[in-house]
Amino acid sequence: MNYFYLVPIASIAALLCAFYFFRSLMKKDEGTPKMKTIAGFIREGAMSYLKQQYKVVIIVFIILSLIFVTMSFFGLQNKWVPFAFLTGGFFSGLAGFFGMKTATYASARTANAVQKSLNSGLRIAFRSGAVMGLVVVGLALLDISLWYLILDFFVDNADHGHKLIMITTTMLTFGMGASTQALFARVGGGIYTKAADVGADLVGKVETGIPEDDPRNPATIADNVGDNVGDVAGMGADLYESYCGSILSTAALGASAFALNPTMQENAVFAPMLIAAIGVFLSILGIYLVKTKEDATVKQLMDSLNRGVNISALFIAIFTFGILYILGFSNWIGLSFSVITGLLAGIIIGQGTEYFTSSSHKPAIEIANSAKTGPATVIISGLGTGFISTVIPVLSIVVAILIAYLSAIRFDVANMLTAENVSMGLYGIAIAAVGMLSTLGITLATDAYGPIADNAGGIAEMSGLDPEVRRRTDMLDSLGNTTAATGKGFAIGSAALTGLALLASYVEEIRVALLRVNDNVLEFADGHTVDVAKASFVDFMNYYQVTLMNPKVLAGIFLGSMMVFLFCGLTMNAVGRTARNMVEEVRYQFREFKGILTGEDTPDYARCVSISTKGAQREMLFPSLLAVTVPIVTGLIMGVSGVMGLLAGGLGTGFVMAIFMANSGGAWDNAKKYIEMGNLGGKGSHAHKAAVVGDTVGDPFKDTSGPSLNILIKLMSMVSIVMAGLTVAWSLL
Amino acid sequence: MNYFYLVPIASIAALLCAFYFFRSLMKKDEGTPKMKTIAGFIREGAMSYLKQQYKVVIIVFIILSLIFVTMSFFGLQNKWVPFAFLTGGFFSGLAGFFGMKTATYASARTANAVQKSLNSGLRIAFRSGAVMGLVVVGLALLDISLWYLILDFFVDNADHGHKLIMITTTMLTFGMGASTQALFARVGGGIYTKAADVGADLVGKVETGIPEDDPRNPATIADNVGDNVGDVAGMGADLYESYCGSILSTAALGASAFALNPTMQENAVFAPMLIAAIGVFLSILGIYLVKTKEDATVKQLMDSLNRGVNISALFIAIFTFGILYILGFSNWIGLSFSVITGLLAGIIIGQGTEYFTSSSHKPAIEIANSAKTGPATVIISGLGTGFISTVIPVLSIVVAILIAYLSAIRFDVANMLTAENVSMGLYGIAIAAVGMLSTLGITLATDAYGPIADNAGGIAEMSGLDPEVRRRTDMLDSLGNTTAATGKGFAIGSAALTGLALLASYVEEIRVALLRVNDNVLEFADGHTVDVAKASFVDFMNYYQVTLMNPKVLAGIFLGSMMVFLFCGLTMNAVGRTARNMVEEVRYQFREFKGILTGEDTPDYARCVSISTKGAQREMLFPSLLAVTVPIVTGLIMGVSGVMGLLAGGLGTGFVMAIFMANSGGAWDNAKKYIEMGNLGGKGSHAHKAAVVGDTVGDPFKDTSGPSLNILIKLMSMVSIVMAGLTVAWSLL
Repeated sequence: MNYFYLVPIASIAALLCAFYFFRSLMKKDEGTPKMKTIAGFIREGAMSYLKQQYKVVIIVFIILSLIFVTMSFFGLQNKWVPFAFLTGGFFSGLAGFFGMKTATYASARTANAVQKSLNSGLRIAFRSGAVMGLVVVGLALLDISLWYLILDFFVDNADHGHKLIMITTTMLTFGMGASTQALFARVGGGIYTKAADVGADLVGKVETGIPEDDPRNPATIADNVGDNVGDVAGMGADLYESYCGSILSTAALGASAFALNPTMQENAVFAPMLIAAIGVFLSILGIYLVKTKEDATVKQLMDSLNRGVNISALFIAIFTFGILYILGFSNWIGLSFSVITGLLAGIIIGQGTEYFTSSSHKPAIEIANSAKTGPATVIISGLGTGFISTVIPVLSIVVAILIAYLSAIRFDVANMLTAENVSMGLYGIAIAAVGMLSTLGITLATDAYGPIADNAGGIAEMSGLDPEVRRRTDMLDSLGNTTAATGKGFAIGSAALTGLALLASYVEEIRVALLRVNDNVLEFADGHTVDVAKASFVDFMNYYQVTLMNPKVLAGIFLGSMMVFLFCGLTMNAVGRTARNMVEEVRYQFREFKGILTGEDTPDYARCVSISTKGAQREMLFPSLLAVTVPIVTGLIMGVSGVMGLLAGGLGTGFVMAIFMANSGGAWDNAKKYIEMGNLGGKGSHAHKAAVVGDTVGDPFKDTSGPSLNILIKLMSMVSIVMAGLTVAWSLL
Repeated sequence: MNYFYLVPIASIAALLCAFYFFRSLMKKDEGTPKMKTIAGFIREGAMSYLKQQYKVVIIVFIILSLIFVTMSFFGLQNKWVPFAFLTGGFFSGLAGFFGMKTATYASARTANAVQKSLNSGLRIAFRSGAVMGLVVVGLALLDISLWYLILDFFVDNADHGHKLIMITTTMLTFGMGASTQALFARVGGGIYTKAADVGADLVGKVETGIPEDDPRNPATIADNVGDNVGDVAGMGADLYESYCGSILSTAALGASAFALNPTMQENAVFAPMLIAAIGVFLSILGIYLVKTKEDATVKQLMDSLNRGVNISALFIAIFTFGILYILGFSNWIGLSFSVITGLLAGIIIGQGTEYFTSSSHKPAIEIANSAKTGPATVIISGLGTGFISTVIPVLSIVVAILIAYLSAIRFDVANMLTAENVSMGLYGIAIAAVGMLSTLGITLATDAYGPIADNAGGIAEMSGLDPEVRRRTDMLDSLGNTTAATGKGFAIGSAALTGLALLASYVEEIRVALLRVNDNVLEFADGHTVDVAKASFVDFMNYYQVTLMNPKVLAGIFLGSMMVFLFCGLTMNAVGRTARNMVEEVRYQFREFKGILTGEDTPDYARCVSISTKGAQREMLFPSLLAVTVPIVTGLIMGVSGVMGLLAGGLGTGFVMAIFMANSGGAWDNAKKYIEMGNLGGKGSHAHKAAVVGDTVGDPFKDTSGPSLNILIKLMSMVSIVMAGLTVAWSLL
């Protein structure tokens, strides 16, 4: 228990450090009055959207909490669940809120600082990104620590093994709060930002031929607001969810794998928390390492960012051995390799993303070349490339799954599927995801700083600063795109591993649910019985026949794959519809107020902001509710085996689809940038127009549907976990 | 055994009837000398491509056969497999060849007849389509009958139950020959036709503004050749494979489900063959019912086509009760309902396809509306619609799986997963697929007649016939698109059900493979043993732990999902690359020979034909070989559970992806047609140009990657089945 206190300490350290960075940020100058005004518009728009979004989300949370209270009342869940659910949602929302607030204060300051030097701009943008990174990990560890202490105090159970299983499975349910909040943030924010972006581009860039972020474009403020609500607040909530999910599912599997050994059980629960806690300290260290000389070149800036991330990753790999050794794991070396496997897989996925999307490699250049024959071939080639780009991430994850599993059982291949080894192996897979996300504090900083640099560029453009400023912010932005590829690799990879861990946690939760309704013995068809409290994963699989010859499992797999496609379709169409409204509004303003294009009239920014806000609010509800209801209905109709099929099908298809969408979108974006650099005729050429079509299609791919899938996968698992009691009780009726 | 002879009789009836239709077709007049010349060009191009394709395929078949001979030599497969494999491939190729030969003779004759009346055109086109339908079912039942008789004569085994399992599992391996041939035909033909189509459209329609099928377009002959090699020969081989696969996998599961009752076992093997045989007679009846008055309206023609299909379907439903009753199934009513469930699911999927793609329903009109804001929104909206359109087919198949399974076990829900019920239930799912495809003779006729009408239109245009002729062939073509939607529903739906049946057949094949290497007892971890010969599906699942907590199963699911995406990416890019070569060739000819566009010079059609031919040949090899090698490698590395994960993941993702691609492609096509009907500004408008981009992207979706997925799913299963011996032997090393 003593080691545990490192977790709240790391949490507080992260939050204090974030607060310190925020304070020093606020002392910087925001620039000219015009810059202040524009930054104020964006900040106001972003905050007002977030408030609207939270209003909708709060209603959903109240309804779900009432359902959980009812379930607790009927003994189908324990009484902590509604509260845990609410705190998960609250802290996740808070992480997004703080991150976004910081970002909206930082962008004008970055634009201002960049006037002096690239390096000062980088520092402000990166430190502000670090606020978000640290707030996410700080709040996550705070929530985890608080609930662990509360439940440890209140849960009373003679059998300590059972107590820790109760605690960890209850804590998992606050993951559902985080996932629900994250899905709304990603879907709502994604629709908002991409509708504004697509709308602004189609009329501004394509039809009217004015540059990006031109203040004459009525949708430009909405576009910049969108970067904040989608790319910052959405991403914050998303990664808060991933981070919590990986730690909590590992803890739950640890409690189960070591159920027979009270000391090791506690340590197995603490292990993921401690790796995360050490990761926080190393992230702070890494953040401080990101600095260069005042007159640094881009290459040096890049090296400096990479140095921060790599040193954190390297040290966490080393420290893991120490943590697991001190905690007394007999196979501490093997388990450490599981963690490192996760880290490595994340890095390889990131490299793959970089290769398939960067404008300096063959795939994006090929897409640019296909622009010579028009938009149709750009789309075909971008889709084809995206489809093919799934190979590296899937192979990495497949290898990581097998190695993380086998390392955790000392490569005992011959007995890899014994009851004991399955528990340990799954714990190994789960802790690999923790390894992947352990340095989130700094990787998220490199991710979040991109949108800040992007917004800084927008403010520079709109405030009429020297074009050199815009050129510099563009450089920072493209730097961010490269480092963000690694960040995305971690986010996608960890979703796959955590998805698997949650699938196993679901079985764990079924155990608890059975005990809760006093169904204490599994009676098998051949007559033999197994105590629920002592049943292994293998026992549960055999009892519920969660095999590939069970029609319910197979039907579930089809449904899971379908859910992924349906969800993408709903979110794509939502962006399409809202973007069309935006296009019509912008066309209307240009048509009715001739003074806008000549610069004599100010466009009505607020109307565009309101179109995005309303569109996002209206369209985010249905897909998100679908993600909550489908697992419940599947459980009621097809029971445990149907749910597991649903989750496995959704995980397989969702993971691959998420990569496809992210990479197609990224590659289209960079193919366009490649042409804009002056290749194939440059800006305004026939090829450029075709490439802009690709980029526009890619917008909802990479920033709405794609990233939402990571959350969809996990939310469906979380819902199944929380509703396990209902599924079990229903099947007994 | 007496009933069995109905199968070869039906086969001969189908072939004779096809021959009769072909003879009467050849008596019709092919029209003006110009029409004859053009039809000759197309026929020659198509035949010469097919020869090239077969040359490549033969090499692959020789190599694979040598591998099978080697495996037989080492006792890993029986000696019949190499021969069965070859006949499957040969007959499948033959079905495509005959179908295409007929189609190339029919199109000019259809164009000529349409000059007289719509009805005479319909009769020629439809009867020629019927030749293909009847050749496919005729050759399939011939191959099945021959092999059954050969194996029944030669396979000698004291235990009759074991003998039928040997026969049916051996026969399954000729399914691999059919699948391999089909994949090459679909991929090669699909690349050929869409590269030509996209190339012809991009330069001809978009850049130069000349109409479709204009003789001045150098790619127009290649485009018309493509319709034949892709849509006719490719589809013929494809459905030959589906039809054989569904019958053979049902037979194999029947042999296993009734292993303890020799009489019923034989009848369970015959049941799918007999349903298919009766379906042949009913298809011939249905084909004769398709006729109308000489001055029929389009509505009447449509009704007449539907009458033929619906009466065949209705009667097969009724006859099924009779067949299963006569064969002595105690649960003949339940099993008949399984068959009818399959039929109904096929019809509902077809209706869904029709709704989501037809230009008279909301989805395609919405896509057309989104063309007002340019190509990017057309693409976003088409992708979104395609994603959403997967809901109806998946829900239909999920319900069909559960009902077909439960009907087959008399709705004994409480015991649905006992060993006996799993065998019966899976037999029920398999026979549902047979039900879906039983009337293939006529549904394929309605499918194949579309490309014939399409080609007739092309010939009319190129020969300078009265525009009224083209208007009439367009009417026939659009009629064909509607009925073809139903045909596609059956093809896609049956692929999902047959995929499940093949998954179960794989387990059956593992049993045979174990017995072949004298591994006669399954020893479980807890010490109990089960005889391999008597082990149930449930035993095998428990023994190999094919559960969702086995990391090899989970890794396999990821790999299966990835295979689908990779395969789509490779085929999409192949079309993109070949189309770009085509675009450059057409641009070159227009640029260098000014006389072509003025009509003074004849374009060099042969160069375009050669680009498509070479492109298809070069590009089809890698994706097809991948489909063959990945299951083998997976089996060697991850064993039985890894292979089953791969197949389940591929099935779930592949099924949903195939629907998405078919429906997005169809909806784009019809959105464009909707605008061409004069809506939203009509031909040549801004919206029309945007819609053409959608249509072009949709081409490889609906005619290359999408339909190939149905085969990919089954080929991977077939390869696993044939290679089961290798997997088993390897795991014993």
